[in-house]
Amino acid sequence: MATTYLAAVFPAPHAPIELGEFPEPELEHGAALLHTMYSEVCGTDVHLHHGKLSGVPYPIIPGHVSVGAVAKAHGSLKTVNGDPVKEGDVVTFLDVHETCNNCYHCLVAGQPTRCPSRKVYGITYSANDGLLGGWSQAIYMKPGVKMIHIPDGLAPETFIGGGCGLVTALHAVDMARLKLGDSLAVCGVGPVGQSAVALASLSGAGEIVAVDAVEDRLEYAKRMGATQTISLALPRKERLSRAHALTRSRGFDVVIEASGHPDAVSEALDLVRDGGRVIVCGHYTDNGSVEIHPHWQINRKHVELRGVWGSRYEHFHRAVEIAARFGGEKPWSEMIGGRFELREAKAALEAVEKRQVTKSVIMA
Amino acid sequence: MATTYLAAVFPAPHAPIELGEFPEPELEHGAALLHTMYSEVCGTDVHLHHGKLSGVPYPIIPGHVSVGAVAKAHGSLKTVNGDPVKEGDVVTFLDVHETCNNCYHCLVAGQPTRCPSRKVYGITYSANDGLLGGWSQAIYMKPGVKMIHIPDGLAPETFIGGGCGLVTALHAVDMARLKLGDSLAVCGVGPVGQSAVALASLSGAGEIVAVDAVEDRLEYAKRMGATQTISLALPRKERLSRAHALTRSRGFDVVIEASGHPDAVSEALDLVRDGGRVIVCGHYTDNGSVEIHPHWQINRKHVELRGVWGSRYEHFHRAVEIAARFGGEKPWSEMIGGRFELREAKAALEAVEKRQVTKSVIMA
Amino acid sequence: MATTYLAAVFPAPHAPIELGEFPEPELEHGAALLHTMYSEVCGTDVHLHHGKLSGVPYPIIPGHVSVGAVAKAHGSLKTVNGDPVKEGDVVTFLDVHETCNNCYHCLVAGQPTRCPSRKVYGITYSANDGLLGGWSQAIYMKPGVKMIHIPDGLAPETFIGGGCGLVTALHAVDMARLKLGDSLAVCGVGPVGQSAVALASLSGAGEIVAVDAVEDRLEYAKRMGATQTISLALPRKERLSRAHALTRSRGFDVVIEASGHPDAVSEALDLVRDGGRVIVCGHYTDNGSVEIHPHWQINRKHVELRGVWGSRYEHFHRAVEIAARFGGEKPWSEMIGGRFELREAKAALEAVEKRQVTKSVIMA
Amino acid sequence: MATTYLAAVFPAPHAPIELGEFPEPELEHGAALLHTMYSEVCGTDVHLHHGKLSGVPYPIIPGHVSVGAVAKAHGSLKTVNGDPVKEGDVVTFLDVHETCNNCYHCLVAGQPTRCPSRKVYGITYSANDGLLGGWSQAIYMKPGVKMIHIPDGLAPETFIGGGCGLVTALHAVDMARLKLGDSLAVCGVGPVGQSAVALASLSGAGEIVAVDAVEDRLEYAKRMGATQTISLALPRKERLSRAHALTRSRGFDVVIEASGHPDAVSEALDLVRDGGRVIVCGHYTDNGSVEIHPHWQINRKHVELRGVWGSRYEHFHRAVEIAARFGGEKPWSEMIGGRFELREAKAALEAVEKRQVTKSVIMA
Repeated sequence: MATTYLAAVFPAPHAPIELGEFPEPELEHGAALLHTMYSEVCGTDVHLHHGKLSGVPYPIIPGHVSVGAVAKAHGSLKTVNGDPVKEGDVVTFLDVHETCNNCYHCLVAGQPTRCPSRKVYGITYSANDGLLGGWSQAIYMKPGVKMIHIPDGLAPETFIGGGCGLVTALHAVDMARLKLGDSLAVCGVGPVGQSAVALASLSGAGEIVAVDAVEDRLEYAKRMGATQTISLALPRKERLSRAHALTRSRGFDVVIEASGHPDAVSEALDLVRDGGRVIVCGHYTDNGSVEIHPHWQINRKHVELRGVWGSRYEHFHRAVEIAARFGGEKPWSEMIGGRFELREAKAALEAVEKRQVTKSVIMA
Repeated sequence: MATTYLAAVFPAPHAPIELGEFPEPELEHGAALLHTMYSEVCGTDVHLHHGKLSGVPYPIIPGHVSVGAVAKAHGSLKTVNGDPVKEGDVVTFLDVHETCNNCYHCLVAGQPTRCPSRKVYGITYSANDGLLGGWSQAIYMKPGVKMIHIPDGLAPETFIGGGCGLVTALHAVDMARLKLGDSLAVCGVGPVGQSAVALASLSGAGEIVAVDAVEDRLEYAKRMGATQTISLALPRKERLSRAHALTRSRGFDVVIEASGHPDAVSEALDLVRDGGRVIVCGHYTDNGSVEIHPHWQINRKHVELRGVWGSRYEHFHRAVEIAARFGGEKPWSEMIGGRFELREAKAALEAVEKRQVTKSVIMA
Repeated sequence: MATTYLAAVFPAPHAPIELGEFPEPELEHGAALLHTMYSEVCGTDVHLHHGKLSGVPYPIIPGHVSVGAVAKAHGSLKTVNGDPVKEGDVVTFLDVHETCNNCYHCLVAGQPTRCPSRKVYGITYSANDGLLGGWSQAIYMKPGVKMIHIPDGLAPETFIGGGCGLVTALHAVDMARLKLGDSLAVCGVGPVGQSAVALASLSGAGEIVAVDAVEDRLEYAKRMGATQTISLALPRKERLSRAHALTRSRGFDVVIEASGHPDAVSEALDLVRDGGRVIVCGHYTDNGSVEIHPHWQINRKHVELRGVWGSRYEHFHRAVEIAARFGGEKPWSEMIGGRFELREAKAALEAVEKRQVTKSVIMA
Repeated sequence: MATTYLAAVFPAPHAPIELGEFPEPELEHGAALLHTMYSEVCGTDVHLHHGKLSGVPYPIIPGHVSVGAVAKAHGSLKTVNGDPVKEGDVVTFLDVHETCNNCYHCLVAGQPTRCPSRKVYGITYSANDGLLGGWSQAIYMKPGVKMIHIPDGLAPETFIGGGCGLVTALHAVDMARLKLGDSLAVCGVGPVGQSAVALASLSGAGEIVAVDAVEDRLEYAKRMGATQTISLALPRKERLSRAHALTRSRGFDVVIEASGHPDAVSEALDLVRDGGRVIVCGHYTDNGSVEIHPHWQINRKHVELRGVWGSRYEHFHRAVEIAARFGGEKPWSEMIGGRFELREAKAALEAVEKRQVTKSVIMA
């Protein structure tokens, strides 16, 4: 009798989540099948459900960052580290696949996120093409998908707690070129912002100030390494005063915008010191526009502003290593506010959408 | 009988220019007196006349970049190169003075333009304190002012043709970290933009596209090294199409905004390629705000945006050397659209204000 | 009757060059066949003939940089620019192939030259595996080999004149992060050094000093852009004095070592200014060791020293574009001191080995 | 009756230390007098005693990094932070003084350590000119010397435990541009190396491997943050094997040479991964030469090597802040192996010279 797997499916934008049954795929040479342990539910899934991303081939199986156990593998597979991937191994994998390494964007501009061949599990693969998202009992690892072992001593929940936000935050913190003792503000401490706080703390930042509207998130940010918090309940002018009080009126060496609110980009430019760096990583999707003031916010400040959208394999690889090494110091697993069965996918998504939790996971 | 010198004075914002008579100053130890040969009239002088800069101690003698001959020197003065400064030498000098090298901004943040002690000839020194601007028959070199010789073979008109715009453009082009063959757009080819075109050309940029509304400026930009031009007479959408046609639909590796129009910051973000660099150097003064779109213009593009306001001594020093070495290749002296006597200062200023010329000089 | 092609073969280290006859290969999907126009003979070929490189699968067909016309293509091939590759097109191609983009070196360390799968036409492919070197009437383009068109207006002789040395020099000059007006010395003006001089000149370097023993090379370097030369006929101490005389006793902002003599690395450290940059790109093969003095040559000088061995696709791609744009300004084709028929390969090699010419080409 | 102060004096190279009596200096405007609390005894003092540094104006009072209490101040003195310096304040100060900020090295090359006016307390000031070294009951703060408060909560012993080695290590770690999780080896864990270990640990380095001959030092390095140690008791080849075992045969992302042995520079080049960074900061004085192999150790590895000799004010300033913030996490005060009275200066020096202690302090 044929094995089948259940998976949650977004049939179309705004349409109710459905539970589909998929036949076990035959493995091509170089492919593998994972039995899913955890798959993340994050803000991008909310956007996908609302149809806010372009180029999404609905129906899709959501779930871009997942952990699973290798059920089957066809051929002798290896990780980037050269380690063999065997049945029973607990792994995670880079959601981005098929980047061609053969086009101008990949090879000359150094911008593989612009590669036209790029595909993403849980986002730009269709459910019609198989088990290519994580909200599923099984995930099909196409040949060449980059799996990596969850190292001994790293609880899968710690890694999935960090999840895609950890990878993005690592990219952002790398770009910020933090020097020991640098002061830092993180505007918005959702999944990306919390990991940015944790990584900045591990990088030896000095004053680390979390800015958010939600008190629980600010409390959690302190456990992740924030030395101070500023509530969005304060008016913008008072937030700036607080920032000045914390930085000898200089502003922060680095500000990381991770909120997704357009206004936060303008506020970040106010909060940063002259000659400081602003990393904008909250606008993965289109949340509208913001008015900025070139003279006061850019020229006169000699500001450096960088945008982060996607990440490279390097960030994913190092994120696993960093979670393994420092997972005991930073409570990443607390990011998971709700654990849900596959058939509870709707509730898992709503908990994120309504901001009841920073992140849900689906345990398939 | 006491020697006196004439100087043009801005008595107050909007007030008519006056011609004042100043006694020859007694030289402190380490000071010198220049007999002015050329002093620049640029957009900043227009702003000063309109009272658009804050902290200006009117009355002032305008003129921040000048060339003169050393009439007197008290003590054994030397340039940064260690060369003695003697009577009769033709020199220029850094308008910025008194930066303390003793405060957080100077010593820790690496942002001497934020030093509270910083003063600027022709801008933040008062005429009540002496001949501290270039629209004057003589300029008092306070002890420690950094003079440098106009090297043999460098026509003073070539250097003053470049003037403050050349220094700012060098700072901008340094920041752009051009690689050989990089494509570049310069939005706005006034004094800063023209020098940016010339310096990018000397740096081995590939396609160099000047964008401006004034046809004469675009023609001049070609003589400075632009390979293509785009007229602001075209609608914005068509300008973008032209840019795409010139860059295989990729956008430019580097865009330098040198127009001072807030909208040009947004257009620069559209014109730049994914992963490219935008340098905003046109907003020395407050010209208003602009709406930008974080998702499309920053995050998704992985853009790097940098602001340039003031410059460091290094830029001034190298600008003189570059003008000396490459002055024969780039027609900087053509930047001077009008040559005026001191008593014609009003006409010199109006020619710039009405955009009849890119730049005037006063020959005192 | 079956078509065959002649190719020059190194059967083994030190063994005489042989002329072999190869059957026309059948094309796999994605492959192409070039009819060779030019293939370069450079110092690396001398090393290959002497067996100085490890891991070379003799017999080999030498010739790593070549220009040819597409004779046949199987499938719809495209360049990195997305342009179709059709029969009759004149192209060059990246000699490096099979870099995996799947290992630690490729994906995490950013060092694809260390990828264990990496192969190089003319060096690490065996003649037993086909027409995989340029000293041949035809070259087999394996599927995925990165071809690029010789653009209209670029004489193939200009590009092959630059050849592999141009690509290496571009990598070196990129690494040197030249700023406009920087002073530079190039130690050794063979094929890499001459292109380094030309590229530094195109990048707006100031004083550009070529150092070599061969008077003809120094003369040629002047035509490539050197402003001064220093002969190795002078004792080392006097060479240093000359360098000081040319740099106000400061030393050079940048020194590029392109000679392959170990002592030149030490001399480069003497010639560079405090806080300057030394790029070592001459030691592609093992030419022995050198004594250096950490206190005086590294610590006290705050020197930055970088090694260049291989290059990335980006350097090759931009080298073609730069040759197309600036080929009229720099006489790259003069690098070719001798043009030889395929059956004269021995003479072509000897001319390089005996330093009678900077470079030979084989016209197959 | 006139106040006098005792100070330890090096009369000449190799001559026995003398105890001199100095009159209390009259304070110029802007000057201050410190009553010394701690002054460091480090390897540089051993070198000074042996006459190994050039340009030292014997007799000198050694002691370049010190902590003291302000006994008197003439005028209203301020720190770089803008805080007033008042009698009774506990401060430290930058030993480097009189850097001119007016010469090519200071202003164009960005190399103030090469400024010809530069002077250093305890090294290049003569005892004939007053109390200008720290092995003294009092230290004369010349006008403009940059004092900074020991912040509340920072034990002076923690800061002096770090001392000059902490400042140099911060410069080195900044230059290494560590990314989160990078692996690192520190060759030589004397005062600089121990702080390099601590700072790398605070910066989120991954594997941190201390290499030294002294078992106690390796143990201490573990308390500072080393994750592994390699003993110089092992032959060089085995040390390399151990390094490979710790880095999946890749070598370290970063190697910091802090031993002062010339051979360690060569070993660092072996230990670093392809494309990694080597910082050489151990050769403050001339300890001889080393043979290196350009092909294998530089070119083929695409290595980046940087030298660190002196530091800038920024490093000193941030070192104080970092010690204040992280002093509780890293046992810097344990660096002090011996506490000596001023009249025991000989014993203090011998303890360092004989490597009985990592560092001594003199408590005056």
